[in-house]
Amino acid sequence: MVLSNCSPMAEGPSLAELGESQLLERLKAFAPPQQLNDDAALLAPEGALRRVISSDALVEGVHFSEATTPAQAVGWRAGAANYSDLAAMGCRQVDGLTVALGAPGATSLQWVEQAYGGLTELLQRFGGVLLGGDCSRAPVRLLAITALGRVDPGAVIQRGAGQAGDRLVVSGAHGLSGLGLALLQGEQPLAREPSPEQRVRAIEAHQRPQPRFDAVEALHRSRPQGQPWRVAGTDSSDGLRRSLALISEASGCQAQLDQGGLPLPPGFSADTALERLCLDGGEDFELVLALNPAWAEAFVAQLPGARCIGWLRAEPGPLCWGATKKPLPGGRGYEHFN
Amino acid sequence: MVLSNCSPMAEGPSLAELGESQLLERLKAFAPPQQLNDDAALLAPEGALRRVISSDALVEGVHFSEATTPAQAVGWRAGAANYSDLAAMGCRQVDGLTVALGAPGATSLQWVEQAYGGLTELLQRFGGVLLGGDCSRAPVRLLAITALGRVDPGAVIQRGAGQAGDRLVVSGAHGLSGLGLALLQGEQPLAREPSPEQRVRAIEAHQRPQPRFDAVEALHRSRPQGQPWRVAGTDSSDGLRRSLALISEASGCQAQLDQGGLPLPPGFSADTALERLCLDGGEDFELVLALNPAWAEAFVAQLPGARCIGWLRAEPGPLCWGATKKPLPGGRGYEHFN
Repeated sequence: MVLSNCSPMAEGPSLAELGESQLLERLKAFAPPQQLNDDAALLAPEGALRRVISSDALVEGVHFSEATTPAQAVGWRAGAANYSDLAAMGCRQVDGLTVALGAPGATSLQWVEQAYGGLTELLQRFGGVLLGGDCSRAPVRLLAITALGRVDPGAVIQRGAGQAGDRLVVSGAHGLSGLGLALLQGEQPLAREPSPEQRVRAIEAHQRPQPRFDAVEALHRSRPQGQPWRVAGTDSSDGLRRSLALISEASGCQAQLDQGGLPLPPGFSADTALERLCLDGGEDFELVLALNPAWAEAFVAQLPGARCIGWLRAEPGPLCWGATKKPLPGGRGYEHFN
Repeated sequence: MVLSNCSPMAEGPSLAELGESQLLERLKAFAPPQQLNDDAALLAPEGALRRVISSDALVEGVHFSEATTPAQAVGWRAGAANYSDLAAMGCRQVDGLTVALGAPGATSLQWVEQAYGGLTELLQRFGGVLLGGDCSRAPVRLLAITALGRVDPGAVIQRGAGQAGDRLVVSGAHGLSGLGLALLQGEQPLAREPSPEQRVRAIEAHQRPQPRFDAVEALHRSRPQGQPWRVAGTDSSDGLRRSLALISEASGCQAQLDQGGLPLPPGFSADTALERLCLDGGEDFELVLALNPAWAEAFVAQLPGARCIGWLRAEPGPLCWGATKKPLPGGRGYEHFN
């Protein structure tokens, strides 16, 4: 949901007026009592599980802007990007996250509290608490987040665990987030104007991505009896093309897509712009996996929206169509420095 | 040591020319083999200890600039600020850190590699490895770092553990880092021109702060027999005044400084500018502690440079001189948003 902009008059004090100590006091409301009282945070013991850590930053003007992302969605997305990395490692338990907030002194406290509110919504939905953090002046707003979770050491997902003959699987469609971003920027890249319902879906995909912990649960439920745990995978934060490259390169294989295998968002007409967004739009935060074919079939049957899209083949090489071995149309993937 | 600036010709490719994938490949050289291969990092099991997490960001134009801090010192300082938080929690073991790097596309790869080189020097000196991270475009250079360590749950240092009658103790002098920063900015705030040796010491204090894990060890060695573990403390990243306020407020006490108790850097003449830097300069990264008097005396005897500077008193109130109860000269402490 896009929040209407409040007038500057209604926004209350700026961070410079408030000062860091007062800001930290206000932010304590978003964490459990006593949680933010010390230089660092103690974590719960890990028991038989292994702890997993992931860091990811959201920067104004790069990953979000006033036009595309209200404060609450900034907080949600920043946390979701990190939780998605934990899901992509196979975590089924999360501890929470630390936040290093950077912002100009003129930033309103209201913006900060709304961003932490979005983060809190994510924590309420997927578990974990605000573990700690840091506030600092910066020329633009940014949230650098580190998430902690726990994984069974015998059920880790790693990029390099793929083998020739594995089925490539996605937990859901790709391209909606990139379409949502384009629409929020006032662009409409598709040949046919999207319906109001499609617009809402696309914007929701961009502003409120869902870390796919449910896909990790579906992996456990769908594992064929006697099948040892071997799951290759990553999340598609940097685009489907990049995810397939990461898995196939780390596994020493080639990724071949089924003809018609692109996991386009359902309900849209065939469209080359949508195909490009599907491959390189980025920020869909789905899981991209390589699984033994029997497991892949069972997984897809378990998880609505999941589908098989191709195969891992023995000879390393660039992403191509399986039938013809023709390389996919060019595209560099989501590129952070351009 | 101040590194001379290299000419732009010698700096090699920019991040935009290199692209994120290639950059990540280059950064793998700074981590153990395979460490940066997945979406997140697995941590070693924690055994009988508890894991501790801390996040802190260094932002160009706020915490460093080309004039004050060569790339290697940026990496060192960013890591040291986080390790200092772990020391301030009582950690005696460190796992390492994750780095979210932000930088404009025109940033040279050389700068990034030198910054990670400085971080690596810190890791070699104090332990731990580069656990993971993220790279992103940003309008200025920044390193948002999260550090992980481990602490004996029976030997944690917390701000609120102080009691009336405790001695206030510092692990070392305060003010040198702030003086070093002023000198690097072409200012000379002292009444008497510092000697070349004093300049070098001040600049070194600013560019290469030392997390005081040695002070944690000295706490363990100096603990009087039969004395239960009760240590209040924090690090002085935001200045001595702020540290004393954090401890006294969290402990419900008042901090009273001994007359002449300011821990000024040795070898300097009395100077009101140096006194201000000692109280509010910030970034000295010493430990500020409140200890039972017998333990405080033993600790100071164990650790060269450490000294007792005051007392915690029962009635809450602002930082003051012990003899006269006169409040200390005004000053807001190190303020991040101005």
